[in-house]
Parts: sequence; C-alpha cells; structure tokens
Amino acid sequence: MNSLTQQLDSITHGIELPSELWRQKARAHLDTLTKPLGSLGRLEDLAAQIVAIREEKFSEPISKGVYVFAADHGITAEGVSAYPREVTHQMVLNFLAQGAAVNVLARLHHAELRVVDVGVDTDFNDIPGLLHRKVARGSRNMLHETAMTGEQLAQALAVGAEIAANAVAAGQTMIAIGEMGIGNTTSASAITCALTGSAASEATGRGTGLNPEAHARKVSVVQAVVAKHFGGSAANASPLEVLRCVGGLEIAAMAGMVLAAAQHKLVIVIDGFISTAAAAIAVALSPNTQGYLIAGHQSEEPGHRLLLQYLNLVPVLSLHMRLGEGTGAVLAMPILESAVALYTQMATFTSAGVSGAA
Amino acid sequence: MNSLTQQLDSITHGIELPSELWRQKARAHLDTLTKPLGSLGRLEDLAAQIVAIREEKFSEPISKGVYVFAADHGITAEGVSAYPREVTHQMVLNFLAQGAAVNVLARLHHAELRVVDVGVDTDFNDIPGLLHRKVARGSRNMLHETAMTGEQLAQALAVGAEIAANAVAAGQTMIAIGEMGIGNTTSASAITCALTGSAASEATGRGTGLNPEAHARKVSVVQAVVAKHFGGSAANASPLEVLRCVGGLEIAAMAGMVLAAAQHKLVIVIDGFISTAAAAIAVALSPNTQGYLIAGHQSEEPGHRLLLQYLNLVPVLSLHMRLGEGTGAVLAMPILESAVALYTQMATFTSAGVSGAA
Repeated sequence: MNSLTQQLDSITHGIELPSELWRQKARAHLDTLTKPLGSLGRLEDLAAQIVAIREEKFSEPISKGVYVFAADHGITAEGVSAYPREVTHQMVLNFLAQGAAVNVLARLHHAELRVVDVGVDTDFNDIPGLLHRKVARGSRNMLHETAMTGEQLAQALAVGAEIAANAVAAGQTMIAIGEMGIGNTTSASAITCALTGSAASEATGRGTGLNPEAHARKVSVVQAVVAKHFGGSAANASPLEVLRCVGGLEIAAMAGMVLAAAQHKLVIVIDGFISTAAAAIAVALSPNTQGYLIAGHQSEEPGHRLLLQYLNLVPVLSLHMRLGEGTGAVLAMPILESAVALYTQMATFTSAGVSGAA
Repeated sequence: MNSLTQQLDSITHGIELPSELWRQKARAHLDTLTKPLGSLGRLEDLAAQIVAIREEKFSEPISKGVYVFAADHGITAEGVSAYPREVTHQMVLNFLAQGAAVNVLARLHHAELRVVDVGVDTDFNDIPGLLHRKVARGSRNMLHETAMTGEQLAQALAVGAEIAANAVAAGQTMIAIGEMGIGNTTSASAITCALTGSAASEATGRGTGLNPEAHARKVSVVQAVVAKHFGGSAANASPLEVLRCVGGLEIAAMAGMVLAAAQHKLVIVIDGFISTAAAAIAVALSPNTQGYLIAGHQSEEPGHRLLLQYLNLVPVLSLHMRLGEGTGAVLAMPILESAVALYTQMATFTSAGVSGAA
C-alpha cells in the first residue's frame, strides 16, 4: 500500500478552496450589470464560482475537454445489468467511431473528447484514438473479494492524475468527466451506501433499465457487497478503502482526475451517478475539492440524489437523463459558458446609461 | 372591431396540431439509437416534438431567431415597478448597443436578435437596428380604461404576424420570444388571473425586485384591474377581450407572432412570465398552437408556474432567473439543438454493432 499512500499524497497535496476574494469581487461586479439585482439566478452563482476557481484567468476563453473512462466490472457475474458485459467494449468502439451520444454532444458544444481504457475486458491492441491506460481487464467480483488490489487502485488514480495534467498542458480550463462500464451503477450504489450510510434499497436504481425482479436482485447484491466489506456499518471505512473494496477502475481514475484537476484549478463538471460517486470519494479524501465541482445534471438514479446531497451540490440541469458517458456534464457546458459570457460581456448600468431601481 | 376580427381570422387560420405520425416515427427511431431505452429523458420528448413540428424538414440545419418586443405600460403610474418607466427606452438602446443579457446569449448561441418597438414611450426617430413598429407610445392605464383600443390591438397582432413571416422568409426554423417593458409583469398577472381564475395574490410576484410593501400595492392594483374589467369572475371574457383590457402592446405583438409562427410550423421557444402570458392568450385563441411551444425555463415569478400549468408545458430549464428579454428561451436553445443533433447523428445498435438489452 506504500505506492498507494504516495499516490494519494501526490494528488491531494495543496488543494485549496477556490478564492473567496475573487468570489466577492465577482458578486460585486454582477450587481453592476444591466439587469435587476440577482435576476440571473443560478447563472450568477455559477459565474461567481467559476471566477473564484479561475481567479485572474477567468476572462480567458473557455477551452473544454470531455473524458470518458471505460472499465468492466466483476460484479456483472451476478446479473446486475440489463446489458451484457461486452457492451462496454462495443461502446468504446462506438465512441471511437463518433456514434455515441457523448460524441454528438461534444462535437456540437466544441468540447474535445478523449476516451480512456482503464479496465475494459478486451484487447484493443493499438487501436488509434483511444488512450490506452488499462490497469486490468476489469475489476474483480466484489461480492467475493475486493474490487481491486491496492496496487491497481494506485495505478488507476495515477491514470486520472496524468490525464488531468495532460488537460492542463493542452490549455483546457473546464472538463467534463464521464464513464462507460456495464455494471458500474452497482459499484456506485455500494459507494453511496458506504459514504452516506444509506440503505441499499435507497441507493440502488434501475441502471440501464432493469425490470422489477432484476432490480430486487441488484439491491440484494449491493446489500451483500456492503455487508461483506464494511460489516453492519461503513462509517469507519476510509474513502480509499471504499474505493478499493467496492469501486471500479474507471471510478478510481475519475476520482484521481477530479483531485488532480482541483490541484490545477480547473472547473470540473461532473455527470451522473457514477461520475458523482467518483467525485464523492475525491471530496471525502480532500474536502476542498468540492469547490471545483459543478453538477451538470440530476440523473434518474435515486442514489445520485443522495450523493449530490452529500456533496452539497445543486445540479444545473434536470432532464430525466440516465445515460452516463458524460452526456449530462457536456450538456451543461453551454449554460456554464453562458454564465461566464454574461459576466464578462454585459454592459453596466453606468456604461449603458440605464437608470437603477428606486 | 371589424379589422380586429379579420386580423384574428388571418393569424389563427389553419393552425394544425404537429404531426402525430412524425412524432411516432421519431419515437421509433429514438429507440434504435445506441443508448438504453428512454435514457435521454426530456431530450427524447423534445426531439420528438421538434420532428413532429418540422416533419420532413426536421433534419435541415436549425436557424435561430430571437425577438424582443418592447413597449411601455400606462399602469406604471400606479407605482407597480421597482424601476422607472424610462428604463424601457434605455434598455432598448442597450439592446441596440449589444450590452444587455439577451445580446450576450444570442451572440454566444448564434441566434439572430431583432428588437421591435411596438409601443415604447419615446421617439426613436430613425435609429438604426430597431424594427420600428410603434402602435402607440405605451398602453393606457388599465386601472381606469382598457389598456388599448380594438384598433391598437389589431395593429399589434399584425406586427407580430409580420415579424413571424419575416422570420420564415429569412429561413429561421426556431424562434425565441422575449420582451422589455417596465410594468409588464402587472399586465401578465392580470392576464393570468383572467385566464386561470387565480387570485391576484397568487399570480402577482415581485417583478424586477419590489419590497414587500410595494408588492402588496401591486397585488391590490392587479385585483382592482381584474375587478374593473371582468367583475367578480373573468371566466366569460374572451381571450381577445382579456388582451385588449389588461394586456400590453408587446404582449399582443408576441401573441400575434406565436400564432403566425404556429401557422408556419416554427419551433417556438417561450421565455418567462410575460412571454408565456402572450403564449397563453394565443393558445386560448387557437388551442392547436400549444403543440408548437417549448417553455425555455421556469422563472421565479409565481404566476409563471400557473401559466405553464394552464398550458400543460414543462420548462426545459429551472435556474431561478427572472430577467425576461428572452434570456431563458435563448438559454434553452443549445439544449434543443442537442436533442435534434442526438436524434440525427447518433449511431443505431445495428450500425454500431452494439448488443441490445437482455
């Protein structure tokens, strides 16, 4: 576990809260713009948060990246998903062929999309367009053993940190974090139980579309997984232990990317249930990370709501989506860009010669 | 009233429901795309609605327009707004100078913005960039007389219809409808009472930011206005009578534009409380119009919620905005474009070789 401890130190070191000074400056500026006070609602909060994160760089053009982390899950042996395991592999090929939902949204909203294989159970050989970072061919069946070894967890965290550093090197300022992994809502449900103390029945949804019978089986699998690794209560488990026991390789990589992106003061847009589970682990490891997060949307998975409450985040969109891939995060990006554009481009009452309120 | 009746016939003639056949085709196509069934949530409903409206033209590029109708209101004499009346005029100049919120959003999201003077209480002379369609220098004080004459109402409806025809001629396929007019939430509240039977206290909000005392005064003004024109109950007033008695020139023009846009099978994105009041009048005049409407957002005005219920519309965004100008409608446009892009560009399970659900 030594390399794991080092890895954790390296990616949580020096994460500060976004600047309160810049947030206050932003609030003051917003109140000078030609609109009734506060009338842009959430857009004002988002603009102030982004200014607080980016500080003097807030007015630089927003350069956007979308990262889709893919991995398989040993727990699929328990029949927890409506789709067969090979869909993870097939969907990675669909991403590379530009045919998936996240491809369409990334193209439309001008976000650079990168797909990362952290643990898909196939050999992609040297297929172009994919970031080859496979740690293992899937996590292990967490009903019987820990989902990964400490060494695998350290490697997956390092993958996320490396991808974050590459995003910074490419000049990106705002990133969306998504995933693909058949079985990964089961992992996210177990993480939710462990972090929030929720019951498996509250934290477990229908995933990609389970019928009631299959959903009941999934709830009992989640319950058994949590009981096996954490006993009656998970309150004493460290976030890293939660990740190692019931996480997934893509979830660990996303957690690593979130932490490293917070170190680099990027705006981090999280997506649905699984992406948010990774962010929740990151915040449990380093609470200041919360200030860099924007919840792109509220998904239909019941556990997502529990995690957003745990993180004290209010989602930007609520469109009854439950697709993953980063789709809800990318979809929120034009709203975030709108908030920044309004902040930087609107006239003030003085400059426009508009009378103020009585 | 003869010209008014003719005008009404002309802009309500031949409005059909969007095509149920195309909506079903759209639903069937959505179910072939590489995503779990229904997992795009509202985006699927929006795509199906837009396909049903546009029919065989659904795959043409979306060309977007934003129309801001400006007028003054006689009711401002009763102290119903936090801002002085001249702000309508000043904000029109701000629109022309590209400094207002809607300018920023229209620019960012590539929507062509046109500002229409239907009734601002100033002489703009031949200032460029403005569509000069002034019917009168503001509506009359509806506490004492009807807000406009039948002739003025007919003219304002015709302005909206003409602007819709111009949008079609310019190749636009999706329009956002917004407004600027100090005092116009009072008019929208009175319309809401008349159409939905709500009490003035339920339908009247804080507008641009009234304090509690001023808000109480506004509620009593709305109550008195409704009582004067419609007696105890407004249930018997025709929608045109409601518009003439308690509307505004910009509201009438927006209602005219909504109706004519439905005739031309445009996708109509409405904004906040006032824009929705105009749409509610349009739907009351011609119920099929409802099928062409998309509610861009849920504003903070309490009457907006009542009108959206009356129209059976679920807003795309809910960001606690209360600005008007069409800002909430323009902000929803990238979401609507996303829905259409996903519909037209995603791979199918067959084309991508992805396995279906068990």
